[in-house]
Amino acid sequence: MTQLEYARKGRLTQAMRKVAADEGVDPDSLLALIASGKVVIPFNPRHISSDSGGEGRRTSRGAGGSPARGSRRGGEDRQPLGGPQRPVGIGFSLRTKVNVNIGTSADFPRLEDELKKVAVSLKYSADTIMDLSTGGDLRKIRRRILRRSPIPLGTVPVYQAAIEAIDSRRSIVKMTADDLFATIEAQAQEGVDFMTVHCGLTQKAISRLRNQGRVADIVSRGGAFHLAWMLYHDKENPLYANYDRLLDIARRYDITLSLGDGLRPGSILDATDRPQVEELLTLGELVKRAWEAGVQVMVEGPGHIPLDQIEMNVKLQKRVCNEAPFYVLGPLVTDIAPGYDHLVSAIGGAIAAAAGADFLCYVTPAEHLGLPTVDDVREGLIASRIAAHAADIVKGVKGALERDLKVSRARKKLDWGAQQKLVIDPHKFEEIRKRRRSRTKACSMCGEYCAMRIVSKFLDSHGKADDFCF
Amino acid sequence: MTQLEYARKGRLTQAMRKVAADEGVDPDSLLALIASGKVVIPFNPRHISSDSGGEGRRTSRGAGGSPARGSRRGGEDRQPLGGPQRPVGIGFSLRTKVNVNIGTSADFPRLEDELKKVAVSLKYSADTIMDLSTGGDLRKIRRRILRRSPIPLGTVPVYQAAIEAIDSRRSIVKMTADDLFATIEAQAQEGVDFMTVHCGLTQKAISRLRNQGRVADIVSRGGAFHLAWMLYHDKENPLYANYDRLLDIARRYDITLSLGDGLRPGSILDATDRPQVEELLTLGELVKRAWEAGVQVMVEGPGHIPLDQIEMNVKLQKRVCNEAPFYVLGPLVTDIAPGYDHLVSAIGGAIAAAAGADFLCYVTPAEHLGLPTVDDVREGLIASRIAAHAADIVKGVKGALERDLKVSRARKKLDWGAQQKLVIDPHKFEEIRKRRRSRTKACSMCGEYCAMRIVSKFLDSHGKADDFCF
Repeated sequence: MTQLEYARKGRLTQAMRKVAADEGVDPDSLLALIASGKVVIPFNPRHISSDSGGEGRRTSRGAGGSPARGSRRGGEDRQPLGGPQRPVGIGFSLRTKVNVNIGTSADFPRLEDELKKVAVSLKYSADTIMDLSTGGDLRKIRRRILRRSPIPLGTVPVYQAAIEAIDSRRSIVKMTADDLFATIEAQAQEGVDFMTVHCGLTQKAISRLRNQGRVADIVSRGGAFHLAWMLYHDKENPLYANYDRLLDIARRYDITLSLGDGLRPGSILDATDRPQVEELLTLGELVKRAWEAGVQVMVEGPGHIPLDQIEMNVKLQKRVCNEAPFYVLGPLVTDIAPGYDHLVSAIGGAIAAAAGADFLCYVTPAEHLGLPTVDDVREGLIASRIAAHAADIVKGVKGALERDLKVSRARKKLDWGAQQKLVIDPHKFEEIRKRRRSRTKACSMCGEYCAMRIVSKFLDSHGKADDFCF
Repeated sequence: MTQLEYARKGRLTQAMRKVAADEGVDPDSLLALIASGKVVIPFNPRHISSDSGGEGRRTSRGAGGSPARGSRRGGEDRQPLGGPQRPVGIGFSLRTKVNVNIGTSADFPRLEDELKKVAVSLKYSADTIMDLSTGGDLRKIRRRILRRSPIPLGTVPVYQAAIEAIDSRRSIVKMTADDLFATIEAQAQEGVDFMTVHCGLTQKAISRLRNQGRVADIVSRGGAFHLAWMLYHDKENPLYANYDRLLDIARRYDITLSLGDGLRPGSILDATDRPQVEELLTLGELVKRAWEAGVQVMVEGPGHIPLDQIEMNVKLQKRVCNEAPFYVLGPLVTDIAPGYDHLVSAIGGAIAAAAGADFLCYVTPAEHLGLPTVDDVREGLIASRIAAHAADIVKGVKGALERDLKVSRARKKLDWGAQQKLVIDPHKFEEIRKRRRSRTKACSMCGEYCAMRIVSKFLDSHGKADDFCF
């Protein structure tokens, strides 16, 4: 059974208990949110990581194609024991989550680099990782990343299916629907927890794209693969035409579907246009069918969006998709700042999450320029985490504002040690402090003229400070 | 006469013409906005910079205490020829402006470092600079920065007055009102274009501060100096009590007053509280008096503000201060990210500017930790420039969206040279491209699987691409 099916039967799974404990929320309330589809827990029981010495567990239970022990036995205490060791809940009322995209490319196919990106993602508290590899031995890379990742792992299966068709038959258009579904099932068997599937990119949507005209057409790689295939064959998108087949795989392995937005705008001038909204309407219908099939589902969203259209986009998705969790890329609020698109996305992401988006896909400083380095991954992740936290404060997420209170109190006391423990990046904090040290107890910006110090002295004593100096 | 007085008489000054040309707006419309107080042009005719070889001009006309040639002669073509060589307009309907704070501290008093910060500020298109020096020879530092700055220069005169009192008489409380006004006039004579004056921090506001209670009390350095003085002497703020004296100096030298917010929140938990709003109400009254005296004026605003209170703060200021230009610091949308406060401020700044704020004071990665380095200044400035541009797109500022269109078109064509010329930081663009080079014409993220490339091929040919490969 999927987490959604367990929830509908009122059965609390271990994954639900862990998520409830992590979020500090009542398990029964969480169960109700999962049952309603407003929250998903991407949790493939076949995902076995070696995070806490589980290499042995992997050998006995993982990646072999046979069902994980204990799955589908039912009963409150008999749910599968596999799955990501640190499951996360994504959706309404929970902490805004952050995904990190990693993966090789043809130009940079080294597995070792990607494993370093996994490590830095975990160090800076990513909630999920997506492996978007397109270079090297895709299967091997994915399996290694899976084993290193105690958090949910996502993929975009059409990448592998398309690249294998190109490698073996010289073109994406030689990919068959069976190839695509076989890849999806193989990845499910390996333990992938959630998958981006571009089911809403239909012929109708392409015709609306032609009718509208766009500055940047399609910038989604998966969307581009589908479009090429559909135009060449003059056929409907196989993921749309055979959606029930997809749902069947997703239900059997409890893959959380992330309905991709192949038509997300790639320039702010294309934002919220008719093809984008056409695709969203289809995704709303597919959400409903996923729920009917007992499959967990979330919806992906833009993209490049001007600042004043972000809240509207979130509200539109929530309404049209019946409150399914919303997973946004960025949004990027301008196109003119490559090199700083992590920051551009932090602006958009904070606004989106505050408006109700549940899940932010990070963007790195290398976006639009090249495959990110390990440092780029760290910078991108921290930027998105700041955006998510800024939103969680105003969403009223448990514990968010309390953290700001603690930092502010430590700051007021000039307690640098306490601050360092509480801030989002203690390493950066220490590095800047060391580089710009003050001879005073305050910082080197103000030194003896520190406002905190002056005000404590005079406000507390009603002006009768014990001496004139400071 | 001040720019405001010229505008009221319907006289276009050279500064107005330059600003109108720079913004691409009609000079007469600009004049009307200046006359109404909705736009200011900080422009002290005594500000003589050597930007275009003007060292000689400085010798003959600058910094000597005598009025600049041609000032107050009146007549359309007889306005002063001095003033910042690149004047800027700040306010309604114009491009959102960005200020860079530089200046020494006791821990880092080196002038040379600050002159490098001037250079990097100009390179990355700062609109104004404020010299907030508190270490070393303040007068010498300020004069050198003024000469290097072809853009308007601002100061906070109470810093110098307070520090001189501490140096000579061991305490801020030994500063006299005459000391403060003498410093203001001396800086005006030197050519400072705008000054932050904490006129709204009244005894009433301090009593509201006590009544409210705060996590971080006062974090404004100028505010702290005033509070110490006021509490010790149990007297009203001299800048409030003698506001007419301040207005007289400001009118004589055409100093644009920037009414400081000494009670701006220093923690998001203190945002929009009663002391903050009390001070704002007073500032609104002082705006009116400045206008009556023919003095250009803008209003400073927070500070640390949660995301969902930013728009409200901007609208409140605009209403209470009769649409006077609004100059915000940040706002910072969380307290937990020192080391990244440039990014935290870009989130808040973009939202504030989109809601109507006119002028962003940048924040660097070193904020809350130490005096910024030259690199920190560059990072902070670029972050604020991105925020300002993201807002200008939705404000409908002339030329803003067109720039995104050009970048997007070049991106779609994979024209890297054209992109590099158009983006906000061509150096960073090139650096990342070089570091992560692709063997293809696309970037190393996707290489041959570039969506732009695939879509161009298949969409334009209606699926009949000339070959299967890409």
